[in-house]
Amino acid sequence: MPQVKLSDLNACSKADFVAALANIFEYSPWIAERAADARPLAGVKALFEAMKAAVARAPAELQLALIKAHPDLANKTQRAAGLTVDSTAEQNSVGLDRLSDAEYEAFERVNNAYRAKFGFPYIVCVRRQTKDSILRDFERRLPNDANKEIRTAIEEICRIAALRLDQQVVSDDRLQVHGRLSTHVLDTHSGKPAAGIAVELIELSELGSSRPITRAITNSDGRTDQPLIGGRPVPIGRYELNFSVGAYFRERNVPMSDPPFLDRIPLRFAVSEPEGHLHVPLLVTPWSYATYRGS
Amino acid sequence: MPQVKLSDLNACSKADFVAALANIFEYSPWIAERAADARPLAGVKALFEAMKAAVARAPAELQLALIKAHPDLANKTQRAAGLTVDSTAEQNSVGLDRLSDAEYEAFERVNNAYRAKFGFPYIVCVRRQTKDSILRDFERRLPNDANKEIRTAIEEICRIAALRLDQQVVSDDRLQVHGRLSTHVLDTHSGKPAAGIAVELIELSELGSSRPITRAITNSDGRTDQPLIGGRPVPIGRYELNFSVGAYFRERNVPMSDPPFLDRIPLRFAVSEPEGHLHVPLLVTPWSYATYRGS
Amino acid sequence: MPQVKLSDLNACSKADFVAALANIFEYSPWIAERAADARPLAGVKALFEAMKAAVARAPAELQLALIKAHPDLANKTQRAAGLTVDSTAEQNSVGLDRLSDAEYEAFERVNNAYRAKFGFPYIVCVRRQTKDSILRDFERRLPNDANKEIRTAIEEICRIAALRLDQQVVSDDRLQVHGRLSTHVLDTHSGKPAAGIAVELIELSELGSSRPITRAITNSDGRTDQPLIGGRPVPIGRYELNFSVGAYFRERNVPMSDPPFLDRIPLRFAVSEPEGHLHVPLLVTPWSYATYRGS
Amino acid sequence: MPQVKLSDLNACSKADFVAALANIFEYSPWIAERAADARPLAGVKALFEAMKAAVARAPAELQLALIKAHPDLANKTQRAAGLTVDSTAEQNSVGLDRLSDAEYEAFERVNNAYRAKFGFPYIVCVRRQTKDSILRDFERRLPNDANKEIRTAIEEICRIAALRLDQQVVSDDRLQVHGRLSTHVLDTHSGKPAAGIAVELIELSELGSSRPITRAITNSDGRTDQPLIGGRPVPIGRYELNFSVGAYFRERNVPMSDPPFLDRIPLRFAVSEPEGHLHVPLLVTPWSYATYRGS
Repeated sequence: MPQVKLSDLNACSKADFVAALANIFEYSPWIAERAADARPLAGVKALFEAMKAAVARAPAELQLALIKAHPDLANKTQRAAGLTVDSTAEQNSVGLDRLSDAEYEAFERVNNAYRAKFGFPYIVCVRRQTKDSILRDFERRLPNDANKEIRTAIEEICRIAALRLDQQVVSDDRLQVHGRLSTHVLDTHSGKPAAGIAVELIELSELGSSRPITRAITNSDGRTDQPLIGGRPVPIGRYELNFSVGAYFRERNVPMSDPPFLDRIPLRFAVSEPEGHLHVPLLVTPWSYATYRGS
Repeated sequence: MPQVKLSDLNACSKADFVAALANIFEYSPWIAERAADARPLAGVKALFEAMKAAVARAPAELQLALIKAHPDLANKTQRAAGLTVDSTAEQNSVGLDRLSDAEYEAFERVNNAYRAKFGFPYIVCVRRQTKDSILRDFERRLPNDANKEIRTAIEEICRIAALRLDQQVVSDDRLQVHGRLSTHVLDTHSGKPAAGIAVELIELSELGSSRPITRAITNSDGRTDQPLIGGRPVPIGRYELNFSVGAYFRERNVPMSDPPFLDRIPLRFAVSEPEGHLHVPLLVTPWSYATYRGS
Repeated sequence: MPQVKLSDLNACSKADFVAALANIFEYSPWIAERAADARPLAGVKALFEAMKAAVARAPAELQLALIKAHPDLANKTQRAAGLTVDSTAEQNSVGLDRLSDAEYEAFERVNNAYRAKFGFPYIVCVRRQTKDSILRDFERRLPNDANKEIRTAIEEICRIAALRLDQQVVSDDRLQVHGRLSTHVLDTHSGKPAAGIAVELIELSELGSSRPITRAITNSDGRTDQPLIGGRPVPIGRYELNFSVGAYFRERNVPMSDPPFLDRIPLRFAVSEPEGHLHVPLLVTPWSYATYRGS
Repeated sequence: MPQVKLSDLNACSKADFVAALANIFEYSPWIAERAADARPLAGVKALFEAMKAAVARAPAELQLALIKAHPDLANKTQRAAGLTVDSTAEQNSVGLDRLSDAEYEAFERVNNAYRAKFGFPYIVCVRRQTKDSILRDFERRLPNDANKEIRTAIEEICRIAALRLDQQVVSDDRLQVHGRLSTHVLDTHSGKPAAGIAVELIELSELGSSRPITRAITNSDGRTDQPLIGGRPVPIGRYELNFSVGAYFRERNVPMSDPPFLDRIPLRFAVSEPEGHLHVPLLVTPWSYATYRGS
């Protein structure tokens, strides 16, 4: 979707307003229609609040229709028939378009079991998740009763909407929908930031295969020029950071054993707060290392 | 081979002495024969020195015959035809009887390239090695000239002999052929040794698949009752120690994130001194950990 | 007092038994007299239990007499008049014979306040304490009622007796009255135990001046040959361990800043369990260090 | 001295220019006079370069006169007679106005020994130093020959000038004369920045008594709102950072021993680069801590 300025949304006709925001909530332009009456809107936060209020005030059957307007996760038939552009991009971001057979089966089981119990699709804001966490989330939610799941589905739909708004509406204020994952390598052998260390971030998966997220080289401050993940939620899940410290010390002619006691150091950790700032540093010599959850 | 007491070796006939030690050096009873003349031997160290001296004093062609008496590593045809009991046990200890196809091919390439260049088999004391280190050792040795390789082969043969002596001869003294790998988990959240942590030691492999070496549970002192590797050389190679700290802290009702920031912690390190004592401890809270090469 | 064997105590006359153990409980031979009837005693633990039982079964007025038989702490007049040999040694061990004027006054206030409230002296097993902890202990005990303080005084008297028994009676078993304080220096710059580091242990004091307890040099294993404190209780109190790491790295020609970032590293910690094993290691490079409570 | 804008210095008469900068070099307005000819000056860096060039190009006797125009350090008689305002402020900043008797004697010895050997005063840029480092610097410089000391004195005089310029001249560019000392407390028991920790920075002294530099409380990010030292050189010397971690954990009801194993943690370290950024963090639980030189 093209970006639109908040000031334009305040100035335009109601029809144009609704057209611009029709798909912020999947196939549910009525929400934009109701939010239009709250204009002028002070910012994107106010816009989001107005849309959430429209959902909250809607009668139960309309809320249920909103929920049912959403596609299943990773459903091949629906994908073939065509999802909205947003849904497609969101599902692809978490890798739902590249599932292994085992993963497809797992997601199909989840969708079917959920739909069989509740009569509506299993909805989760996938951009805040990894494949593993989506399946864990499902395990936790399936035992709930319908009322609780309706509330949870609405919450997740609002999270999806917030991320779409953040991408489509340009405003002086910002929704708090981005997190950050960063690292820092301190060479405590020489007492300096470790520059030139190759760092790889990998998303771990219990079901399928792990997948590389990003690669970087530490700069003269021992940090990566860009955060490992930034400008978006940090998906809930398990990760490995891999640091090539053997090559680093070898290049500096630091005496080491053969093979080097430490070569590629893996740090495995989980992300639980997609909108938080998570800092995972490494303090390292050729013979020791330490890490901790920083901020 | 049945064990034999050093005192009996000192007291028995030369023929019995040679029979008992005929295969300490592969298919080369002449070494035991010459060592017999050094009796009485003060201990197993003196016995080993006498045997090494016999090898060192032997003419070049006899040394070469000793080298050629050894089998290729992981050679299917030779295995089918029958190795000595000792050679079989040694090669199996490092997993040469369970190679993947890719590994078989790698070892075949190594044997052939080496034999083509030097005219004798590539010999290494496999009980001090892993599959990976054997191949790395080969890469380093292949460029050598024949004289250097004859010396290296003799050294490796003596290491093989030392380990066979250590197993077969009972004496008051011991050859220094054993190393030790140990760990220790300190829970710095509660300031106590971490008891009940599941620990797994895995041998890593670049070529084939990693293989589990041992599993243990830490005792009330935060240590394993037995060293992870002990009573034998610690094979040169790369390893992963895996500590189930998430389960440990969960059982103690320590507040954690969901999923837990740290769950199964992998420490990857290399062993370079098979006869050394290597201690790899873990200092851990739910939010931080550290390790170092201890002794 | 000369040492005596448990077997001799079992074999000798009751009079000799009482004579040998008359002063295990200060000026109270009646306790030894009653314990004599429990002979034969299986060991020093059984002997101690018999003496404790005699105290526990004694009528209240006799228990009170036992309490009143004890001297004040650090009382100059009583010291001039003469304490028992044991009391003198015990009080001197904690430095009560070398108090500053301010400390004397503090102890005098404590003794007087306590005696004024309870009518008997303030008793504490000083060999398990430092000057600071004695005064802290007093602050906590003064608000108690008389019954609780009688129980506490008896407990402390039994702790004093246990330590006297441990010194005077030779037996196959031992009372659990000794603790241990140890250290270990790991040089994580070179990946080896740090040998030759000068270590100093200092007892800290809020009231008076700190006092050095022991000095040592780390051996090739990075440890001190003897524990910093061993073969006795580790007195409750606050301590500083001081490690001369600047000199250590300078001797090894490790590049450092000028002046060195780290030179003499102080670790300050408290001891709370006199009979426990407390291990306070140091992991150190010229640019970083870490410590933790080990065991 | 009142601050003056660089643009005004470029625009004003030569006389005003010299008047404004007369004392940037102690009692040596001729340097400003010569620098005036270099106008217009692009910034304070260009101004400083012009002044340094004037010094460098001056004949030897004028350079010597510049050196001799400086007062002795901590000289009571000279202080009574009156130093320049700048010299007084600089000497006071390092505590030379509050020396103990022993320190006065040490400085007097230094001044006299230096003047006796070289015939001019011992000059050092005191705002980059502590009392200890001034005396250490002297020990290193006294063995030099006169030529080397003239060069060193000129260098120190230029450092003094740079700091005076930085304070007196307002320009778009800045001289690189400031360093920074900062800290950060990570509570690895709870996995969060440690907020509300009392931190004290103390300058250590071998000769006299240590003196507190600053006190602060960590904020919600575990940092102090202002750097411990900033906006000026970080004086070369030894320091102690003291962290009240016992109180912090007690307030959070974290289980601890009694007395707490860790209470007030001292980190002792040296500063060697006054213009550098030095970060000294603390990672801490009630049972462990670590620090390192960060940046």
